[in-house]
Amino acid sequence: MNPVEPTEPLEDEATLQLDANGNLCHLLTLKGIGKSLLTDILDDAENYLTRPGELPARSQTLAGRTVANLFFEASTRTRASFDLAGRRLGADVLNLDVNTSSRKKGESILDTIYTLEAMQVDAMVVRDASAGVPAYIARHVLPHVSILNAGESDVSHPTQGLLDVLTIRQHKADFANMAVAIVGDIRHSRVAMSTSQALLTLGVGEIRLISPPVLAPVDGKIPGGLVFDNLKEGLRDADVVMALRIQRERIGNIDGIPGIDEYFANFGVSRESMKFARPDAIVMHPGPMNRGIEIEGVLADGPQSVITQQVTNGVAVRMAVLDRIGKTMAARQ
Amino acid sequence: MNPVEPTEPLEDEATLQLDANGNLCHLLTLKGIGKSLLTDILDDAENYLTRPGELPARSQTLAGRTVANLFFEASTRTRASFDLAGRRLGADVLNLDVNTSSRKKGESILDTIYTLEAMQVDAMVVRDASAGVPAYIARHVLPHVSILNAGESDVSHPTQGLLDVLTIRQHKADFANMAVAIVGDIRHSRVAMSTSQALLTLGVGEIRLISPPVLAPVDGKIPGGLVFDNLKEGLRDADVVMALRIQRERIGNIDGIPGIDEYFANFGVSRESMKFARPDAIVMHPGPMNRGIEIEGVLADGPQSVITQQVTNGVAVRMAVLDRIGKTMAARQ
Amino acid sequence: MNPVEPTEPLEDEATLQLDANGNLCHLLTLKGIGKSLLTDILDDAENYLTRPGELPARSQTLAGRTVANLFFEASTRTRASFDLAGRRLGADVLNLDVNTSSRKKGESILDTIYTLEAMQVDAMVVRDASAGVPAYIARHVLPHVSILNAGESDVSHPTQGLLDVLTIRQHKADFANMAVAIVGDIRHSRVAMSTSQALLTLGVGEIRLISPPVLAPVDGKIPGGLVFDNLKEGLRDADVVMALRIQRERIGNIDGIPGIDEYFANFGVSRESMKFARPDAIVMHPGPMNRGIEIEGVLADGPQSVITQQVTNGVAVRMAVLDRIGKTMAARQ
Repeated sequence: MNPVEPTEPLEDEATLQLDANGNLCHLLTLKGIGKSLLTDILDDAENYLTRPGELPARSQTLAGRTVANLFFEASTRTRASFDLAGRRLGADVLNLDVNTSSRKKGESILDTIYTLEAMQVDAMVVRDASAGVPAYIARHVLPHVSILNAGESDVSHPTQGLLDVLTIRQHKADFANMAVAIVGDIRHSRVAMSTSQALLTLGVGEIRLISPPVLAPVDGKIPGGLVFDNLKEGLRDADVVMALRIQRERIGNIDGIPGIDEYFANFGVSRESMKFARPDAIVMHPGPMNRGIEIEGVLADGPQSVITQQVTNGVAVRMAVLDRIGKTMAARQ
Repeated sequence: MNPVEPTEPLEDEATLQLDANGNLCHLLTLKGIGKSLLTDILDDAENYLTRPGELPARSQTLAGRTVANLFFEASTRTRASFDLAGRRLGADVLNLDVNTSSRKKGESILDTIYTLEAMQVDAMVVRDASAGVPAYIARHVLPHVSILNAGESDVSHPTQGLLDVLTIRQHKADFANMAVAIVGDIRHSRVAMSTSQALLTLGVGEIRLISPPVLAPVDGKIPGGLVFDNLKEGLRDADVVMALRIQRERIGNIDGIPGIDEYFANFGVSRESMKFARPDAIVMHPGPMNRGIEIEGVLADGPQSVITQQVTNGVAVRMAVLDRIGKTMAARQ
Repeated sequence: MNPVEPTEPLEDEATLQLDANGNLCHLLTLKGIGKSLLTDILDDAENYLTRPGELPARSQTLAGRTVANLFFEASTRTRASFDLAGRRLGADVLNLDVNTSSRKKGESILDTIYTLEAMQVDAMVVRDASAGVPAYIARHVLPHVSILNAGESDVSHPTQGLLDVLTIRQHKADFANMAVAIVGDIRHSRVAMSTSQALLTLGVGEIRLISPPVLAPVDGKIPGGLVFDNLKEGLRDADVVMALRIQRERIGNIDGIPGIDEYFANFGVSRESMKFARPDAIVMHPGPMNRGIEIEGVLADGPQSVITQQVTNGVAVRMAVLDRIGKTMAARQ
C-alpha cells in the first residue's frame, strides 16, 4: 500500500461513516456512533435472533446486492459470521482469498478495491493487519459503496464491540452501575478498544483493564479505563469479566510473561479467580480461546459463560449493520 | 483435540445416529443402519438421478438451513459433492478451509463446532484424519445439530459405502449370489470398511479382500471378508471388482511393495486381470485414481467401468441423506 | 496431464466451439468467431450494464445449472468476474481450489473433468498455464458440457479480448480508421493475442505491438501486427493505448531489460509518453497493474483511463457468453 499523502486534513473516520442525514453508510469505528444509533442497532439485532433449532431469521434487504469478504488476515469465525449474515439477508457473498492471489502479484489494495467496485460489489468487509486501512479504503470508494471494518490491526473491531454490548445488555440492564473487567493482552487488543468504546457510549459505570504491566494499554488508548496489574483486585465485584486471547508467541518471549502456567496463575480467568467477581457475573471471550492459558476450559463451558451467545449475537449484529447499510443504499436510489 | 475422558461407557456411535423414533439424525457409520433404512436411502437417491444433460434434481427440503463443510483433510471431490448436494436441496453451504485458520491458531475442534452451532449451522459435514472425531463431535453438539461423516481416518466413509452399493444395485440385482472383490490397500482403506459394511447389510454372497500381505486388513477389521494375496485367485468369477487408491508414498517404502511396475503387475486391475472375473463384471474405483498403478487407464474408461456413475450416485446419496436428516429436523420443530 | 496422442487430425478448436447450427457451445478462442457473432455478444453484454450504484443486471438463464471455476493458476479478478457472472444468471457456482487438492494427489486433469461432469456440472471455466488445455478438455467432455477458456498459457484469453473490444467500441466507433497500440511484454501475453484477434475480426485499421526486442512477438504470432521497439514511434497518433503487465521477475533477468526505471522510461505508458498518441486516446490495462513499471499510476487514475470500465465490461461479456451458452444448452433439451 502506498497511501497518497493528504494535502489537507482528512475527514475523520467517525464522520465519514455517516451520510449527511446521519444514516450509516460505512462501519469503520464505534467512535462517533452515538447512544441512540448504537441502541437502534442492538434493537435491530435482537430481531434477528431466533431460538436454537429454529430457522435463523432471514430477509431480502440485500437481494441483488453483492458483499465481498476481503480478509487480508486469516479468519474463520468472523469471515463465516459476515458470510452468513450477508446470505441470510439475500446478498451474493464473494469470499476472496486475498493472501494467495492479488497481493502475491503485487497489486495495491486500492486497485483490488477499484476492481471489486467495478464488478458492482456494493459492500466490502475488510480485515487488515495495518491500522487505517478501512478508513483509507472508505475515502477512496465511490459514494454508493460501503466499507465494513472486520478487524483492524490492534485498534478497532467495531462489530465485536457491538456484539459484546448486546450480549451484556441481554444479562445486565444497568450499564451505569456496571463494572466490566477486561483481562489479558490489552495493549494489542482491538477488541478491548471497540468494546470499551461501546461501553462508554452506553454510559458504563467502570471499565477495568487488567494485564501484566508489559501488556497494559499505552497511555490514553482507552479513555476512562482503570488499569490494574493484579487480577484479584481488578475482578473485585465485577459484573462482567471478559478474557482476551493472548498470542502464544508472546509467552516466554516478553519480559514479565515467563510461561503459560505462570500466566494462567496470575491472569487466567478461572473458577478460582471468578470468586472475586460478583456471584452473578458473566464470563465472555471473543474467541478463539486458548483454554488453560487466558481462560479455564471448565469455566468457559459453565453456567456463567455467555461465550457461544456472543457468537450468535455476532451474526445478528452483522445482519443489523448490513441491513441498515442496505437501507441507506436503497434510499439513495 | 483434548477429548474429555468418559467416566461411563459412551453411547455407541451406531445408536447415536438414530433418534428415539429410529430416524436418522447423524450419519457417522454404516454400522447399525439396517437393511430397511439402507434400502430406503438408496431408493430416495434414485429419485435424485436425472439423465446426463438434464437439469439435476432439486428440492427445497433444506431451504433456510445452513450446512457447513468442515474438512480437516484436503478433498476436492467429496467436498464438492456435499456442496452441490446441499445447494440442490436449497441450503446455504459454508465451506470452511480449516487448515489455514482456526487450527493454525490452536483452537480446539469442539470450539470450532460450538462456534458454528452458535451461528445456527444445522448440519456439519466432517472429514478428519483421526478416528473417532465425527462421533466425538456428535456427542457434543446440541440435539438439533446433525453431523455427517465425510471420511474418518482409515475406519469409515459411510456416504462412499452408500454410493458404492447403489452403483452395484443398478447393475446387479442379486446380492446373495454376488462376489465382490476389493483390491489394493485394504489395511488403510476407509472405503473398504464402509462398502463392506453396506454389502454385508444387503446380504452379499462374498467379499474378497485382495492385497499384498503387508496391506491386508488387520484381523477382524472386515468381518466376513475373505483375504487373498493373489489377484487372479481373488478375482475368479467375481461380479464386482473395486480397485482402491494406493498412496504413492507407500510404494518403494514398504516391504513387499518394491515398485510401481511390480505393484501394477501383481495387483493392478486391468483388462488382463479382469479376464479372471466374470465377463459381465463391473469395475469400480472410489477416486481419485492412480492410472497405471492400481488400475489400468483403458479399463477405467472402458465399457465395464462404472466409475463416473459412482460420482453421480455420490451426489444423489448425499442428497438422500441430507434430505432425510432435514426431515428429521423439521419433524422436531 | 498425459494427453493421448491423436491418430487422426484433431478438429480445430475454432470449429469445436460452435455446434452444427453455428451456436456457441464452448468459448475456447476468438479465432473462428466471426464479426456477426462477436458483435452479437458485445450487444448482449451492453444489456447487462447498469449504472454505478444501480443493482447489477440479473437473469435466470442458468437457474438450476452448475458452473465450476477450475483455476489451475491463481487468479482473483477473473475468477471473481466469472463467479459473479454465473451467479447473476442464477447458476450455482462451484469454486475449486485445484492447486491444493486433486493435483497434489496426482489426479489427471481429465479425471477431474469427468468427476465434475458426473456431478452434473454444466459449464467449466478453465484457467491453465499449459497451451491447449481448454481445447483438450472440450474434446473430451460430454456433448452437453461447455468449456470456457479463462486464460490459457500465453496463447489465449478470449473473454479478455471481448471485454477489450467492447470497451473500445464504447469510446471509438470507427474500427477501420483506428490505430491500437499494445505496449509491453507482447511475447508472453495471451491478452495481446486475444485482443488483437477480436480487433482484426472487427476490421481494425492498425495494430501496433510495442516492446523491447526481447519481448517482441515471435514471427506470425499476431498476424497483421506492426512491430515497434520505440515507444514514441509506436504511440504516434494512436487512438487506443493498452499497457500490458510485465512480470517483475523478467526485469533485470533478461538481456535488454536492465531495471525498472529504465523499463518505465522506455516502455512505460505515462502522461509523458501519451503526448505522442492522439489527445482523445484512451488508456487500457488488463490488470493487475504494476504502477510505476508498465503504467504511470496518475495516468491509470486519470480521465483518459478506461481501466475500471474494462472490469465492469468483463462481468458483462462473461454474462453474455454464459447466457448464450445456456441458451444453446436449453435448445438441446
